[in-house]
Amino acid sequence: MNESSRPPRSTVKRLPQRAVYDRAAIDAISDEGLVCHVGFSCDDRPFVIPTIYVRIGGQVYLHGSPASRMLQLLAKGGEASIAVTLVDGLVLARSAFHHSINYRSVVLFGRGAAVHDDAQKLSVLKALTDHIMPGRWSEVRAPSPDELRRTLVVSLPIEEASAKVRVGPPLDDEPDYVLPVWAGVLPLKLSALAPLPDARLAEGTLPPPYLTDYAGPQGAVGG
Amino acid sequence: MNESSRPPRSTVKRLPQRAVYDRAAIDAISDEGLVCHVGFSCDDRPFVIPTIYVRIGGQVYLHGSPASRMLQLLAKGGEASIAVTLVDGLVLARSAFHHSINYRSVVLFGRGAAVHDDAQKLSVLKALTDHIMPGRWSEVRAPSPDELRRTLVVSLPIEEASAKVRVGPPLDDEPDYVLPVWAGVLPLKLSALAPLPDARLAEGTLPPPYLTDYAGPQGAVGG
Repeated sequence: MNESSRPPRSTVKRLPQRAVYDRAAIDAISDEGLVCHVGFSCDDRPFVIPTIYVRIGGQVYLHGSPASRMLQLLAKGGEASIAVTLVDGLVLARSAFHHSINYRSVVLFGRGAAVHDDAQKLSVLKALTDHIMPGRWSEVRAPSPDELRRTLVVSLPIEEASAKVRVGPPLDDEPDYVLPVWAGVLPLKLSALAPLPDARLAEGTLPPPYLTDYAGPQGAVGG
Repeated sequence: MNESSRPPRSTVKRLPQRAVYDRAAIDAISDEGLVCHVGFSCDDRPFVIPTIYVRIGGQVYLHGSPASRMLQLLAKGGEASIAVTLVDGLVLARSAFHHSINYRSVVLFGRGAAVHDDAQKLSVLKALTDHIMPGRWSEVRAPSPDELRRTLVVSLPIEEASAKVRVGPPLDDEPDYVLPVWAGVLPLKLSALAPLPDARLAEGTLPPPYLTDYAGPQGAVGG
């Protein structure tokens, strides 16, 4: 989505110097997130729910139980706003006012639709699994027909999208630079700790490299 | 909010065994989060925006520019749903279907109001700063009257709230336990890396202990 064609709702109103409308940048942020937050209205009241997701091309996919109120609403064409937020660091300025957060975030808008075709559902679930843990899908037992029936998959075309990004050091007021206050950035990162094997692990099963070298979610293959 | 008095909207519909309604548990999750996601409606369309926040007692406070569309809407009594989500780990089962996430999340609902009193605004900004980085406020230059004027602070009473929590190992179907697939939990944690000092740091300024021993957001004092 380029600057000239973007629809009015996704225009970033505040601090427009932080706004990013380039589609490749928006996709890259979306692909690095683990959990998104879905905003929707139900009975004229706002709701926001966290869930995992995957982007494939110009679509975002969510999944869950057919009994999920949010998925039911989206499956019927309901509108959603989806935020993916990556926190990169705390920005510590010399004044309270100029403290900030380094982050990359996208907000997407679209109307949902149910994915009915079993082959497409499987392909979305594979992409979702491999987005979160690349290589995992091929090692685990695939969903049975009954499990597929018990999984509602919803697609949302990315109809509008915008991103906001803050990087770099604090920006203080000139007179404040002489203050003897530590200033700079404390980088933050969602990191994996040592894997905890299940108590009933089959004998001799070692943690695979995608686990011991885990580097976070990746873009879906073909996405 | 105890089970018998909780209003209908905040009842967790899916997987009720994961639901937590105890107020102390809800507060503890809220206090550990850095960024929340605020869902609101504008022109009958759903929006979701990430922002920092602090809980003090039964109120959540947001702040930002007076030009923020979201804050303007909440300052006028607009309704919001606020989600705080802590991701604790990836749950790797032997079947694709039973993969999950260990997490703690809360969803709060309330109607906003602007905080007009300067002393109260200052006290909220102090709590917000010390929630994210305990001890920081007392070292930095406090907001000037002009900076306070340029900061809109909004309160939301927590009118309804619920939490969802998943902990522990994967739960596989009995026949799948014999599969030679690594299963267990990959713990995830938002961790601080080494602080990056600002290029114009006053000479001899060392990183304070609250930075080098950073353990994430804490509950506001008196909260």
